[in-house]
Amino acid sequence: MENGSKRWGFRANKSLGSSSSITVRGVLNLLVDSLNKEDTREVVPLAHGDPSAFPCFRTTPVADEAVADAVRSAKYNHYSPTVGLLPARRSVADYLNRDLPYKLSPDDVFLTLGCTQAIEITLTVLAQPGANILLPKPGFPYYEARAAHSHLEVRHFDLIPENGWEVDLDAVEALADENTVAMVIINPGNPCGSVYSYQHLQKIAETAKKLGIMVIADEVYGHLTFGNTPFVPMGVFGSIVPVLTLGSISKRWIVPGWRIGWLVTSDPHGILQESGVVESIKGCLNISSDPVTFIQGAIPQIIDNTTEDFFVKINNILREAADICYKKIQDIPCITLPHKPEGSMFVMALMMTWTSVIKLAKEESVMLLPGVAVGLKNWLRITFSIEPESLEQGLDRMKAFCQRHSRK
Amino acid sequence: MENGSKRWGFRANKSLGSSSSITVRGVLNLLVDSLNKEDTREVVPLAHGDPSAFPCFRTTPVADEAVADAVRSAKYNHYSPTVGLLPARRSVADYLNRDLPYKLSPDDVFLTLGCTQAIEITLTVLAQPGANILLPKPGFPYYEARAAHSHLEVRHFDLIPENGWEVDLDAVEALADENTVAMVIINPGNPCGSVYSYQHLQKIAETAKKLGIMVIADEVYGHLTFGNTPFVPMGVFGSIVPVLTLGSISKRWIVPGWRIGWLVTSDPHGILQESGVVESIKGCLNISSDPVTFIQGAIPQIIDNTTEDFFVKINNILREAADICYKKIQDIPCITLPHKPEGSMFVMALMMTWTSVIKLAKEESVMLLPGVAVGLKNWLRITFSIEPESLEQGLDRMKAFCQRHSRK
Ligand SMILES: Cc1ncc(COP(=O)(O)O)c(C=O)c1O
Ligand SMILES: Cc1ncc(COP(=O)(O)O)c(C=O)c1O
Repeated sequence: MENGSKRWGFRANKSLGSSSSITVRGVLNLLVDSLNKEDTREVVPLAHGDPSAFPCFRTTPVADEAVADAVRSAKYNHYSPTVGLLPARRSVADYLNRDLPYKLSPDDVFLTLGCTQAIEITLTVLAQPGANILLPKPGFPYYEARAAHSHLEVRHFDLIPENGWEVDLDAVEALADENTVAMVIINPGNPCGSVYSYQHLQKIAETAKKLGIMVIADEVYGHLTFGNTPFVPMGVFGSIVPVLTLGSISKRWIVPGWRIGWLVTSDPHGILQESGVVESIKGCLNISSDPVTFIQGAIPQIIDNTTEDFFVKINNILREAADICYKKIQDIPCITLPHKPEGSMFVMALMMTWTSVIKLAKEESVMLLPGVAVGLKNWLRITFSIEPESLEQGLDRMKAFCQRHSRK
Repeated sequence: MENGSKRWGFRANKSLGSSSSITVRGVLNLLVDSLNKEDTREVVPLAHGDPSAFPCFRTTPVADEAVADAVRSAKYNHYSPTVGLLPARRSVADYLNRDLPYKLSPDDVFLTLGCTQAIEITLTVLAQPGANILLPKPGFPYYEARAAHSHLEVRHFDLIPENGWEVDLDAVEALADENTVAMVIINPGNPCGSVYSYQHLQKIAETAKKLGIMVIADEVYGHLTFGNTPFVPMGVFGSIVPVLTLGSISKRWIVPGWRIGWLVTSDPHGILQESGVVESIKGCLNISSDPVTFIQGAIPQIIDNTTEDFFVKINNILREAADICYKKIQDIPCITLPHKPEGSMFVMALMMTWTSVIKLAKEESVMLLPGVAVGLKNWLRITFSIEPESLEQGLDRMKAFCQRHSRK
């Protein structure tokens, strides 16, 4: 029998290979393919989500040295305990406690492979037959992908551009039913650059409490704020509603390749413990890969020794970039920004269609993310976490492009 | 409304928190609890699977330095591509090609978070409704846990102690039906310390071909051999049957905390490509966390620069330990080793019951893994990857224990 003609008895799980759904990665690949190789100008990447390659966003040497020391110590070559090393968990708890009215214990902290795995674990734990979860639109499409994988039904509530991309809480109330388990907020916001006020977060907490659902607070951009609204962690309202806080060092320390983050129960009344959620989180971590042990070993040094200077420097660059973005876009005829970004690394702008994003890549070597990739057609996401001069260049080219095409 | 009395609308996925199934970790915790705190002697840990903490099993400085250099270079702080960095994939392909009659390309290699994630991805991809998979007994219980999580039916074939723990191929044929997608082999073997001959592997390939199923070859202990049988990778038979080769640097380099491994399609006829398995693997990786980028960056240096000395030294220690184990057990009245270990870090011994493993921990501060944790009642697994003197001590205490109790 020939191998070629042999009937093999396996087929793959087709739902995994689906190229039907639009993913950020898929769209970016399409854009890269659209670039004009003859254009001698540098490509201006305003579609990415990872500024770590730009010299101005290089992480602090404190972090590099902490990791190099940890790996050389040979103390951390072993497997990690399921929930993470205690000193690292204590360190994350202390870090978060700086902004909370109560005290998290290390046992509230589960170390994960970045915020990505924190999302994976959370959605896996909540995926009961029949359950549904409320997600923001626009949002971060990994939630949709993971929910689909776990057969967890998704319902979308709008973020309202005119209100600084606040949650449409009426929509949340209308969407929720007795099978709703949680709502997700991303604050500071990807893709909108929004930062929610204390008052808005409190209203979210009260709405969730009324509905009997928990709040999943994706704070991976925590503390990356540079506008008038200070960052308030959702955990502040943990005594109103149980909160799962998801975070990582990927964004604030600009080391997304290091894969270390956390899933934290911000829940002083112990409701998540009581309801079995904590037990399930542990069960799920038990059959998952752990973050690299020596990076866990370096976490206390990274958190304790990074100086305020570094954070201030990064936030200053982001502020400058956000300002450039906001000002320059005033002059671009076919794009509007409904709201000046105050946090994260992104802003949503209204206008261009999907085809013109491809045209822009082709004609001007500027890459933008079409809004459809984050759940909002006719919008686009601009990343401003890039060297400010390149940003200016990119916006100038966008202006030229718009002028050229609107004249026609 | 009081928080305490509030009815929250979420419950957790109970199947995840199950403490009902016996896990290695669970059993080890039980044993630790059984230890007698008044015993002033050092605990002899012969139940673990991670020798990295013992000085004689310290990894090569080549590996430490490669990682320290990579993190300091700041070239690898970015997110990893889904399949892994190309130089690292090329390096793994070259490493495996040394022992293959055909050439793997970097595109056959998918980098994973250790062999653990390679198993997770493989079972997720194969979990179609109605499908079943054949697993060895005794085996590595993570397969059972992951299959249960993905609702993939499991059927067990025996490994035969009298035949050096070879696969019972008649049982494999009897178990398989048209819904069987794959069989798993672990070679060198955990928990048996077996190393399969070229002839036996060829028979496995032919049986699998006849049944129309693929072979999943867990070679995480690849090259850790010290007996008469050399290590032959299953991929050698890739033109008979499509093979998924799973491996990592965890064991041979003794850095399980570094979380880097691979999932490789050893399949020169491209059957896995054709059947959609490769596409599914990519889809699954797309929604999973990636291995740390700077460790991927260090892989070429680690693989190219580790000298034969290091590997030889480690295998010599393991040989010495296996010899001690084998010889000393001849003198222990109530334990028998049907087969001298030739690879990995473990051996299965017949006799003690579960209760006496607890008694042994209590009375002699020696920890052994009861066979029930790896699927075989009335057996126990002895880890010999420990400083040889401690091993001797542990075996002496086991002897005293057996003599004392058999006299009664
Ligand atoms: C909203 C949001 N959540 C989570 C993540 C994943 O973060 P991490 O790198 O920590 O896995 C990202 C990354 O871009 C993000 O934008
Ligand atoms: C048979 C087997 N497969 C896979 C693994 C997991 O290896 P890794 O550390 O590379 O995830 C182990 C670990 O003990 C093992 O014994």
